[in-house]
Amino acid sequence: MVDVNPRLAPAKIIEEAKSYVDYTWDEPGSMPGTLQVEPDAPTPEIYLVDYRDGCLVEKTLNHPADCEPYLDSQSVSWVDMRGLGNEPMLQELGRVFGLHPLVLEDVVNVPQRAKTEEYPDQILYIARMVLPLPTGTGFVSEQVSFILGQHYLLTVQEEPDRDCFHMVRRRLQANKGSIRKLGPDYLMYSLIDAIIDGFFPVLEDYGERIEELEEEVVTRPTRQTLKRVHAIRRELLALRRAIWPQRDAINTLIRDENLLVTPEVRIYLRDCYDHAVQVLDMVETYRELAASLMDIYLSSVSNRMNEIIKVLTIISTIFIPLTFIVGVYGMNFNTERSPYNMPELNWYWGYPLVWAVMLTIIVSLLFYFWKKGWFENFADPKN
Amino acid sequence: MVDVNPRLAPAKIIEEAKSYVDYTWDEPGSMPGTLQVEPDAPTPEIYLVDYRDGCLVEKTLNHPADCEPYLDSQSVSWVDMRGLGNEPMLQELGRVFGLHPLVLEDVVNVPQRAKTEEYPDQILYIARMVLPLPTGTGFVSEQVSFILGQHYLLTVQEEPDRDCFHMVRRRLQANKGSIRKLGPDYLMYSLIDAIIDGFFPVLEDYGERIEELEEEVVTRPTRQTLKRVHAIRRELLALRRAIWPQRDAINTLIRDENLLVTPEVRIYLRDCYDHAVQVLDMVETYRELAASLMDIYLSSVSNRMNEIIKVLTIISTIFIPLTFIVGVYGMNFNTERSPYNMPELNWYWGYPLVWAVMLTIIVSLLFYFWKKGWFENFADPKN
Amino acid sequence: MVDVNPRLAPAKIIEEAKSYVDYTWDEPGSMPGTLQVEPDAPTPEIYLVDYRDGCLVEKTLNHPADCEPYLDSQSVSWVDMRGLGNEPMLQELGRVFGLHPLVLEDVVNVPQRAKTEEYPDQILYIARMVLPLPTGTGFVSEQVSFILGQHYLLTVQEEPDRDCFHMVRRRLQANKGSIRKLGPDYLMYSLIDAIIDGFFPVLEDYGERIEELEEEVVTRPTRQTLKRVHAIRRELLALRRAIWPQRDAINTLIRDENLLVTPEVRIYLRDCYDHAVQVLDMVETYRELAASLMDIYLSSVSNRMNEIIKVLTIISTIFIPLTFIVGVYGMNFNTERSPYNMPELNWYWGYPLVWAVMLTIIVSLLFYFWKKGWFENFADPKN
Amino acid sequence: MVDVNPRLAPAKIIEEAKSYVDYTWDEPGSMPGTLQVEPDAPTPEIYLVDYRDGCLVEKTLNHPADCEPYLDSQSVSWVDMRGLGNEPMLQELGRVFGLHPLVLEDVVNVPQRAKTEEYPDQILYIARMVLPLPTGTGFVSEQVSFILGQHYLLTVQEEPDRDCFHMVRRRLQANKGSIRKLGPDYLMYSLIDAIIDGFFPVLEDYGERIEELEEEVVTRPTRQTLKRVHAIRRELLALRRAIWPQRDAINTLIRDENLLVTPEVRIYLRDCYDHAVQVLDMVETYRELAASLMDIYLSSVSNRMNEIIKVLTIISTIFIPLTFIVGVYGMNFNTERSPYNMPELNWYWGYPLVWAVMLTIIVSLLFYFWKKGWFENFADPKN
Amino acid sequence: MVDVNPRLAPAKIIEEAKSYVDYTWDEPGSMPGTLQVEPDAPTPEIYLVDYRDGCLVEKTLNHPADCEPYLDSQSVSWVDMRGLGNEPMLQELGRVFGLHPLVLEDVVNVPQRAKTEEYPDQILYIARMVLPLPTGTGFVSEQVSFILGQHYLLTVQEEPDRDCFHMVRRRLQANKGSIRKLGPDYLMYSLIDAIIDGFFPVLEDYGERIEELEEEVVTRPTRQTLKRVHAIRRELLALRRAIWPQRDAINTLIRDENLLVTPEVRIYLRDCYDHAVQVLDMVETYRELAASLMDIYLSSVSNRMNEIIKVLTIISTIFIPLTFIVGVYGMNFNTERSPYNMPELNWYWGYPLVWAVMLTIIVSLLFYFWKKGWFENFADPKN
Repeated sequence: MVDVNPRLAPAKIIEEAKSYVDYTWDEPGSMPGTLQVEPDAPTPEIYLVDYRDGCLVEKTLNHPADCEPYLDSQSVSWVDMRGLGNEPMLQELGRVFGLHPLVLEDVVNVPQRAKTEEYPDQILYIARMVLPLPTGTGFVSEQVSFILGQHYLLTVQEEPDRDCFHMVRRRLQANKGSIRKLGPDYLMYSLIDAIIDGFFPVLEDYGERIEELEEEVVTRPTRQTLKRVHAIRRELLALRRAIWPQRDAINTLIRDENLLVTPEVRIYLRDCYDHAVQVLDMVETYRELAASLMDIYLSSVSNRMNEIIKVLTIISTIFIPLTFIVGVYGMNFNTERSPYNMPELNWYWGYPLVWAVMLTIIVSLLFYFWKKGWFENFADPKN
Repeated sequence: MVDVNPRLAPAKIIEEAKSYVDYTWDEPGSMPGTLQVEPDAPTPEIYLVDYRDGCLVEKTLNHPADCEPYLDSQSVSWVDMRGLGNEPMLQELGRVFGLHPLVLEDVVNVPQRAKTEEYPDQILYIARMVLPLPTGTGFVSEQVSFILGQHYLLTVQEEPDRDCFHMVRRRLQANKGSIRKLGPDYLMYSLIDAIIDGFFPVLEDYGERIEELEEEVVTRPTRQTLKRVHAIRRELLALRRAIWPQRDAINTLIRDENLLVTPEVRIYLRDCYDHAVQVLDMVETYRELAASLMDIYLSSVSNRMNEIIKVLTIISTIFIPLTFIVGVYGMNFNTERSPYNMPELNWYWGYPLVWAVMLTIIVSLLFYFWKKGWFENFADPKN
Repeated sequence: MVDVNPRLAPAKIIEEAKSYVDYTWDEPGSMPGTLQVEPDAPTPEIYLVDYRDGCLVEKTLNHPADCEPYLDSQSVSWVDMRGLGNEPMLQELGRVFGLHPLVLEDVVNVPQRAKTEEYPDQILYIARMVLPLPTGTGFVSEQVSFILGQHYLLTVQEEPDRDCFHMVRRRLQANKGSIRKLGPDYLMYSLIDAIIDGFFPVLEDYGERIEELEEEVVTRPTRQTLKRVHAIRRELLALRRAIWPQRDAINTLIRDENLLVTPEVRIYLRDCYDHAVQVLDMVETYRELAASLMDIYLSSVSNRMNEIIKVLTIISTIFIPLTFIVGVYGMNFNTERSPYNMPELNWYWGYPLVWAVMLTIIVSLLFYFWKKGWFENFADPKN
Repeated sequence: MVDVNPRLAPAKIIEEAKSYVDYTWDEPGSMPGTLQVEPDAPTPEIYLVDYRDGCLVEKTLNHPADCEPYLDSQSVSWVDMRGLGNEPMLQELGRVFGLHPLVLEDVVNVPQRAKTEEYPDQILYIARMVLPLPTGTGFVSEQVSFILGQHYLLTVQEEPDRDCFHMVRRRLQANKGSIRKLGPDYLMYSLIDAIIDGFFPVLEDYGERIEELEEEVVTRPTRQTLKRVHAIRRELLALRRAIWPQRDAINTLIRDENLLVTPEVRIYLRDCYDHAVQVLDMVETYRELAASLMDIYLSSVSNRMNEIIKVLTIISTIFIPLTFIVGVYGMNFNTERSPYNMPELNWYWGYPLVWAVMLTIIVSLLFYFWKKGWFENFADPKN
Repeated sequence: MVDVNPRLAPAKIIEEAKSYVDYTWDEPGSMPGTLQVEPDAPTPEIYLVDYRDGCLVEKTLNHPADCEPYLDSQSVSWVDMRGLGNEPMLQELGRVFGLHPLVLEDVVNVPQRAKTEEYPDQILYIARMVLPLPTGTGFVSEQVSFILGQHYLLTVQEEPDRDCFHMVRRRLQANKGSIRKLGPDYLMYSLIDAIIDGFFPVLEDYGERIEELEEEVVTRPTRQTLKRVHAIRRELLALRRAIWPQRDAINTLIRDENLLVTPEVRIYLRDCYDHAVQVLDMVETYRELAASLMDIYLSSVSNRMNEIIKVLTIISTIFIPLTFIVGVYGMNFNTERSPYNMPELNWYWGYPLVWAVMLTIIVSLLFYFWKKGWFENFADPKN
């Protein structure tokens, strides 16, 4: 379920990958809480997992209202809604969970900046999940909104058919570790941790791409290299914008006083915060490396130009004077009119002498260039 | 009413768009509270909307003093003054609303930096509204000053015929949502929110222009490209200076203790603050992208120069030696005087041999260039 | 009195304008409070204005001691000393006003960094005043030191014949506004405000110079352009260093608790602080624009080089092969010795055929260059 | 034992040295506390040193459980585990020392970011140790985790056969200074101090490499230089990422209130903190120097190109006009048909005159170039 | 005594000047408090000045222990130790003054970062003193450590024969100002102030060097210019690292509560702090100017290349087509075989016509170049 949906055409993926730059906005002056449902957004699907230590129920629901019996029970209910394509259903969701109109707006009008907000009985946590595309082609990102209540956790995803939560689901099903012994806050931690850890494989791909480019910019810089370097910088900028507010949002979860997050889970969130710091650290490192790639590119292009001009100069500097000399003896001055008119043409050793002069010039110039070190890089086959 | 006033000649618009860099200043040493009314500023028009949940009155007033009966009533009065071209009327406005001289100065001497200032019975909030020009031509900006009182909201705009408040007016007229149930602070929030959301369409335009330029700088960088990149950087700098202080000003509204802004509205303002952060985040992202466009431009120009010099070098390196060779056999040494004087000219295979030598040189050089990879980019039609 | 002293020779002005970079320093290890009186500093002139609401006295004094009768009176005394060229008089000034030796040192050993310092009965405020030179030639700056006491304000300027306080003097004389109704703290505010507002005309000049240069760097970058860009950057750096500490110093005046600055005047100082922030904001904007001018300059120079090399390459690439061809038929192989020796020379259509070949080459190359887009910028008259 | 393990093949070392960029990550969604044991990690070896002032016992243990008798005794026990290649043994270690699952995860899943974390009876301190490779080839780094308890210190290293603690071990054995008189916190300080001081020899190597490159970039910049500069920047970035969080972690040790670190040892840690600041200061200095090397490289390459083009231009500018002149007199116009057809060819002084004209041109051009200063750098043998 | 020791050979000075980058470090793991005495460090000399208002004693001591009688007396004792070349003497110094081992380590193992540290009866202040070398050759720096006690001040310098304290000594001897009336804290202030003021003459030298280079980079940029710019940047970086921590250390002296520094002296230290801020301000300004010199250098080199290529292009573009034309009429087509074979050669006006064509080409091209503005910079003699 982690893999990118094969139904997505590559073109669509690229388009999508590009769209992570802009936040959603309402028409200026529109009523707060106005929902913007895109016509091509997928129809929502609702999955319920209700569990306590001993038992676990999984269900696919048709209407948000079907959750209601589970919300007040002592067991933990995880309602996972995927898809944002049906406005009445989203409105009903807001009613069932008692969401503030601004909360519902943030959940539906994606993308929003990651943040934590406290409401009397709920905590809103907005996260950005990244999923790797095939090696070398970047990533897609998606908003996941969490609403944490006393006995439930509501998560809302944009797309029904991809996320990075399958390992958490398996741990729930297999009752591994303490996940079924603790409350919905621990479940929320597990999902946030999965989202943060999901940045690492994406970053690893960038690390490899930068390493390849480091070689490429020095030995064979082309226009394609330039495009690739810029694409990496642009995408790392997007990653930085995705992880930066999440780090702050996790910190808010840890620091703020509220009863919904237990002290035990705060220790786990502290670990998750460390991971977010590590992600940010890596992003910044890659950004610095990518920035210095640009410098190297420019230096490298200058270097190549240097080599090309050196070839031109060596050839020109050797042959232009020689061509002048042979030009001299191609003149048609009338040698018969005057003894001063090109007497060389009639010398016995005239032609060999010209060659001697020209060879001397060639050898001197080659020696001059060799002393200047102009032949140094020519041994290299790929100049 | 959102559209730019068609009466404005394009030249005027450009001029105006350029003028967002400088703040207004008094002559050094002049009295605090001195008003500077520009001779070509439009004559003020005053619109009053007085409403409570059940009823709504709209009026166009001739004098600020006509507001007085509405100000103390329990209903909410929105006095919207548009145009700054009549000093006595502005002075009267100050008197009617009891404005501190420094407040009136900030309202009239536009542009000022956005800010929130508290006075005993009023809050002054200075905002900067941006309005998009036709695609690809940037934006105009305008100062909107808010004075919030117990039962009234005074707004002062620079231009009578454009703003981004028409949706708020419709919500007031249609009694949609809770806008008529709440006080003037909610009205102020709605207008500030419209101003902040008004940055998004402007930014979207820049996003598209940057994307176009990313293609252009790599494949066909010209002097026009350079101008366009610089124009975008300059305008994004202006946008940053417009949104940055507004974010702080909204934060001041939320944090400061005062009775004019109710806790309920503060929650809405927090949402508005989030939007301002998102605007700033986008502006910074675009600024980074635009800055790296400059690097790419330079690299790209170097790249093109490389290609041009490569063409020159290939042609020169091949033909200059050949020209020398044919020059040799154009010399007029007297072959009859000596057997050493250009005997080649009289050889039976002399001419074909010269061609053989020259073809060998051509082929060797082409092979050398091919090994160096100099032909790689030539396939590309747009080098 | 605002205008630059016409007696200053332009060379002197430039010299002076350059000197704003370095602070004054004592010989290492010298006694604190050591005064450094420059031999060519102008002789001090002392102007006294003593006023209360009803009356105003203006006097020119010969000795600082002549102020003493005014200092303790209930009326406000403004002692304005201009010129730092007489050490005994400065020492006497220190004695009359009871200045701490370090205060007197800061006042006399100009330039110092702007700051606010509190002493038991006095506040020291050191400001830096800028005055515009003729358009396009920058500015001069001068230190103004304020010592605020219970009933007096002492100001010390470097030069007797220029400042930006004439409007304040007129307001005092004309009793305009509340300036004569309030204490010396309001007078100090008025003067500080005049100094801060004095930055705007200087900045406006830089705004225009940058706008001119933006055109120049793209269309006709020369070495003079480079010098001008660097000069602007250098001077903006100086302006930034002048305004930055003043902003902090005004903030200290507003925040610190002391009885010499009344709450009413603090509101006015808050306005003045806003102006300082606006000045700083403009300086930073201009600095960013000037920095990006350097990038554009480099790109622009590369661009021009590109154009020049393109011309060279087009001409060379067309004519070098042709010159080779005509060279071939200039060879003197003996056509009579062998039928293979340049039979073309004796062909009937030989010469026209050579021209046909050469024209074909010319047309093909022009087509190739046109397809590569090399002719695009040639239409532009100023390449 | 400080020296790099000779068994490591150089290729492996390089590979390892490169791997310091990325942090370890779990599969997204996996259970917190999941251990990742790499298949080729070395088998753990456990060394115990148990000491008090009078006596010292050294032992090599087979199982973590063998430590248990020592942990509760009043003597100080230093358990030094080296190698992370045996998961059951690591789990047992966790059980014996009562480690929180997240602590064990941080210890085993290397590399982690340096940090200090407090637990009820323990302090976790994660450090990064750097060890110099042979001169000019960089460094390897390794994580060392410290768990400080009441009477014991547990350290876990990645590699069994290299660290920088041998001097501390000798001080323990020789009972030099107060190391055996103080508790495990002083031992921890001594080891952290050895780690921080271990950065200096690594940095010294970079200082020398930068100094060499400073000469190289100016006088003979090649593509290898570019690679070296980039490698240094990359490695300094890695050093910065290693020392930065350690500085904060040491500060946390000093500031946080806990009973495990005594006030006496805090004074020593303050000294250690100063050293960390000095390391960071040096790293930042080297980074600035390396960054400016890149600028110099680019300038230097441009400079060389300049010199090459100057040679080309001088030669071309002199000989191209001359070649034209001799070409003129190589034309074959029929001098017999008309007196205007190349009468020069039949002049008595024709040929000498042409030489006179050509020599005049050569001398004038050389003079022109000399006045322009083009010959200035030619004296330098290595242009 | 301020002047650089004439015994130092210039080479030694340069070496020394370079060494200001690296801090001292112990072998990793060595015992805290280990002293590192360099074999060529000068032998310590100890100077004692014991004074009170009425009397002053100056002595040269042989052993630190000779100070003991003076330390507890009510008079102020200044023990000035110069040279770090004798370990037993340094150990004895530590014993006599009761120095913590870490304090003695910081004093002896130079260089250390500047800092203030409080101990129960003492304050440790580590400063860095800079001394100017002959104009244009930079500076040397040296560590001065201060230990302030109840009735004494111990200073430890690296070199016996240079410092910037001679003016302070004269003030002590001459009993000028209040230096003999106040305690050792005022003496410490006077020395710190001399150290800070000692930065100004060094900086002034850099200001002049930058001003010279500003001219040089624009008009005649050579490889030496590049080296000089880099040297200045490197040395300013060193100055910044010297002054930055001193500013913080002085601030710590002012802010921290301790009885050894009296409130009266704190006012003086505030002045000294202002000077440190001014030094830092100047360093940063020079650093910005030096950084922009690098940009100008690159632009300037490009500019020169432009000029050179322009010359090449003008000459080539004019003469290459002409050479082709004269080449055409050098061909040897047999005019007798056919009327189409070069009939021009036999025309009556053939040769003059060719010249007419060629002159037309020359004039057109010159006009074209003139319109493009290529001749603009040629008037300048130093292109």
